[in-house]
Parts: sequence; structure tokens; C-alpha cells
Amino acid sequence: MIKTPYLLFLGDAPDDLAAKVAQGIKDWRPEYAVGQFRMAGCGADVGVPDMTLQEARDAGAQTLVIGVANRGGVISAAWKEVLIEALRMGYDLASGLHNLLRDEAELVAVAEAEGRQMFDVRIPTVQYPIANGKKRSGKRVLAVGTDCSVGKMYTGLALDAEMRKRGMKSSFRATGQTGILITGEGVPLDAVVADFMAGAVEWLTPDNDADHWDIIEGQGSLFHVSYSGVTMALIHGGQPDALILSHEPTRAHMRGLPDYQLPSLEAVRDMALPLARIANPACEVIGISVNTKAMGEDEAKDYLAEVEARMGLPAVDPFRHGAGRLVDALAAL
Amino acid sequence: MIKTPYLLFLGDAPDDLAAKVAQGIKDWRPEYAVGQFRMAGCGADVGVPDMTLQEARDAGAQTLVIGVANRGGVISAAWKEVLIEALRMGYDLASGLHNLLRDEAELVAVAEAEGRQMFDVRIPTVQYPIANGKKRSGKRVLAVGTDCSVGKMYTGLALDAEMRKRGMKSSFRATGQTGILITGEGVPLDAVVADFMAGAVEWLTPDNDADHWDIIEGQGSLFHVSYSGVTMALIHGGQPDALILSHEPTRAHMRGLPDYQLPSLEAVRDMALPLARIANPACEVIGISVNTKAMGEDEAKDYLAEVEARMGLPAVDPFRHGAGRLVDALAAL
Repeated sequence: MIKTPYLLFLGDAPDDLAAKVAQGIKDWRPEYAVGQFRMAGCGADVGVPDMTLQEARDAGAQTLVIGVANRGGVISAAWKEVLIEALRMGYDLASGLHNLLRDEAELVAVAEAEGRQMFDVRIPTVQYPIANGKKRSGKRVLAVGTDCSVGKMYTGLALDAEMRKRGMKSSFRATGQTGILITGEGVPLDAVVADFMAGAVEWLTPDNDADHWDIIEGQGSLFHVSYSGVTMALIHGGQPDALILSHEPTRAHMRGLPDYQLPSLEAVRDMALPLARIANPACEVIGISVNTKAMGEDEAKDYLAEVEARMGLPAVDPFRHGAGRLVDALAAL
Repeated sequence: MIKTPYLLFLGDAPDDLAAKVAQGIKDWRPEYAVGQFRMAGCGADVGVPDMTLQEARDAGAQTLVIGVANRGGVISAAWKEVLIEALRMGYDLASGLHNLLRDEAELVAVAEAEGRQMFDVRIPTVQYPIANGKKRSGKRVLAVGTDCSVGKMYTGLALDAEMRKRGMKSSFRATGQTGILITGEGVPLDAVVADFMAGAVEWLTPDNDADHWDIIEGQGSLFHVSYSGVTMALIHGGQPDALILSHEPTRAHMRGLPDYQLPSLEAVRDMALPLARIANPACEVIGISVNTKAMGEDEAKDYLAEVEARMGLPAVDPFRHGAGRLVDALAAL
């Protein structure tokens, strides 16, 4: 649907976390990421060459992907200048922002005049049903986190890559803008109307072969008061057979909520598992994924060993060390 | 906003539960309910006089309120005939259905031609913020249920009535169509986009006097897989100081989910309280409200006594016996 490859627009993202959309594309579909476009004040770097619009166009880029998240923000005048220049230069635009490209009259006018397409992947395009809770065939796994942005999507993409490598049947089921930009399909769950959230997750993960795994992209956290309702709908709509606990150990407080401390992995397990068993009484917590990006290699290994011993479950950084042991645990279910 | 009094349209509602919007108006604002309009096959009766459109108009009715809930249904041709006749006769229309009056071209055309207004109270009219989780002044109470439609709204309305009677400061905060039709304001939470659910509840229950109670209308159930995400957002956005457990003891299975049994009151308490304490560590479960409508007087009293002894909390049917003991418990917090 969206033409590849991409130039990744980082804008004036203050830090790497704000550029997780671009980083995700670079990490999981590096062949789509020709380069990155950064503006003055940008504190993010996803590790691909910096390019001007013209340089990336010359290198074959077809779509400028807005690779930054803005927390309830706006499309600034400075951004708009770049986007308009890109449209004029022949780029399509793709975005997962709350603020829609299609709501920006200037962008719409230029896109129409130039015959370019603009994709707002955040907008649901399906009339989702209300969840019916019926047991579906096939298997499902969901990552639940101590916080937002701790590596749930990466965990899922790493599981999917490992399962495919082993010849297992699996589908990564995207529930957020990055996942949708990476895989080209999915449900933009945080933009779905409340009553239909769980139904959208059921729709996304339908009946399947008994040995097929749906790897459902997690969102939010039961412990993050802004988004816990979305997490809840994933747990009940997804009726997972397996949960993976996801954590980032260097976080000082819940993302965006300075007054809230992160819960322990034990607390997440004890909260999520009884909730998951409402929809699937056979659900088990099968492992732990830790985002050790901010740690040195030895520190990461020590930390993982400590968590593994304490929790009695395989604890890995699937991005750093591979998802093999988590897939082993799923295959053994 | 909506002109009173009303004629309550019950349509072809199969049973009384389906007509809970109309019943709520009759129970809590009887002065608004001139009569009810029932079609062939209607199995509901809210206990006000049956009237034709003309009889109710002659009795002063200004608005035809669609007093039935339809689970993801449609506005049928038979309904539409009545609604069009009502518009022609001078009625405004008000509805809390998923299916919007404004999306029905025939209704829109007649309403415009006749100069009538149509209110879809289910549609959010505010751009809600993302929840920030900050502690707010004033006190808040929320009912959490074993299932949907077990009496959470009635519990809240009864608390509000009792507090007003005592001269306490209180506000009933409607979060569903019935509550909004009754009080004239509120947040249609199940129609809010997922990311903004908790923020909408924060918006609805802002800082207030230290001795003021927001009585937040509950929705869904943590144990109802179709709607649990909405319940979660109420718990975290509402940051309640007090929870009331709500139950209907004759329900054979979760509403609309034949494969799901109702949880025990203990299970609801043990699930809801730790979740509520994420947003408000001081939260307590202060009592139990039981909808004993399907029980005789003696049976109801025996049941309430058993629950009270078992749970160690005041257990009352606030609609049948008044909310006094629940308000006592709140006042003692």
C-alpha cells in the first residue's frame, strides 16, 4: 500500500524514544530505510545516513515517513514546510500521528495539485465488531509491560523473526502506528472507539491453524493510568495463551507520569495473569523480555540472570540476544 | 439542552433490560416521563402510561427519547416510520444509540424541513486530553460490577440523591447515554477514542472542594471481555477514593457472553482494588450494592444479610432500600 523505500523524517524529535517509529522501521525493515531527515534541535538518531530530501529522492526514496511520535502535539509550521517541499519533490507522505495529514489544508492542497498520496495509518479503516469472547482456534502470545515504550513491539517482531527462521507458522499482528508502517497492516488500536477495542483485537487475530501463532503487539501498561484501558482490551480481545512480561530497568518513573513509579515484574505478573485467565483460563506467563539498551553487555547479562533466577522464567533481551529461548518456551506450551 | 418532558420510545425492545434508558429516566426524573410508546412485539414496560404520539403531544411532550439500547444494531424501517411521524408532529428526537440519528438521511431531511432538533447524546462533543494521572482535590466514588447492567448507574444516582438530601456536596458524573439523558451532561465514554478514555474521566471529575463527592457512573466490568477496557479507564481516570461492588445475583452468565460465568464479589474486590490503588493508593472498597429486583422482599433481605456477613461490608439494594448505609460509609472515610 505505502510505496517503499522510505526517507525517515525525524523532525525536531527531542530524544531517541520520540523517534521510535523511525527506529522500528530501521531495525525490522532496514531495506526500507534509505536515510533519515533531521531538523535543527533534533536529538534523535536512528543510525542511518542523514540525507536532504533531494539526496534521498536521488537514492530512490518514494515516501517520507513521519518517524516521530508527538504526545498530543501539533504539526508545526517548521515541519509543514518540509512536508510541502517533499510533496513537491515527488514524495508520498505516511504518518501515524494523532494529528492527521488530511486535516492540514495546506498539505491536502499541495498533495492534490502534485498528485501525491498521504497515508494516515492511525485512522481505523474497518468497522470493528463488539467483542464476543468466543474461543478461537490457533495460538496467541501478548507482551505486557511494566510501562509504555519498554520493548513490547520489538519483542513481538523478534519472536516473529525467530519463528519464521524455524519454519513455524506465525503472524505479527500490529496494533500501533509503527507496527502498521513496518508490516503494512494492522489495527491502530489507540484510535479505535472504546466499545470496539476488544472486538478490533478479536478481528485482528481470527481463527487459525492449531499450530499457528498470532504475535499480538502490546500497548501501554496495566500500570500506566493514561493507557491501561487499551492494554486491558488487548488482554481480553486477544485471549492470549501466553504472556511475556516486558521491562526496561533504567526508567526512573512511568513514561510521562513523574508521580508514578514502575511496578515490579512480580506485580505485573500478578495483575495481568488473573485478568488474562478471564478470557483464556489456560493462559501462562512464559518468559520475560528486558530492554537492556541502556546497559553494558556485562551489566545486561548480570541483570537478566538475576531476573531469571528471581522469577523462575527465561529472561532475555530479544533484540540484543535473540528471541530463541522465548520461542522455545512458546513451542513447549 | 434537550427539551422536556419526554415521550419514551420503547420500540420493539425484547425485554426490560433492553429498555434501561427509558427505565432510568422514569426512575430518576419521573417528572420528565409523560408516557411510553410501544410497538408490536415490545416486551418492555417501564411503568408509565402507554400513549400514542398524539396523546403524548397533547399532554405536553416535547422530545421523543429513544429509550432502548440496541447491541450494535440498526435503526429499523419500522422505527424510522415512527420517528418521522414524531418529527412531523413537532417532536425533537434524542438518542443514545450507536447508530446516529444524524446518519439517517430520511430523518435529517424531515428534521430540517420541519425545523426540529435531533440529539445524539452518544457523540463526544469535547476534545478530551490524554490522562495525566495528577492527584485531584475532592473525593470520588465509583461502582464496579460483576457484570454489565447490574445497577451501577442506579447505585450512583441513589448515592447522589441521598447526599443531596443530607446537604452534602455531590455531583453525579454521567458516563453513558442514560446518565447523560437524565442529567443533561456527561461523557459518552464508550464512544470516546481509546487513547483519551482515561483523560475524559479526568476531565469529567476535576479538582473540587475537599468535601465534595464526584459520583462516577460505572461502565462494563473488569470481567466482561467486551468492555473491560472502558471499566479500566474509569478506575484509572477516576482515581476513586472509594469503590462500591455492584452485583445482580440471578444472572445465569455474563450479559451477551453465554460462555462466561459471573465472578464472585470477592474476585471483583481482589481484582479492582489493586488496580484502583495504582492511581489512588488510599482507595478502599466501602460497600456492596445488590440489584435485588428479581427477588422477593424476604429473599432479598436474606441475600443481603448473607453477603454483608461474608464480605464484612455494608450490603444494600440502594434502589429498593435507599443508599443511606453506603453514604454513611463514604462519610466515614
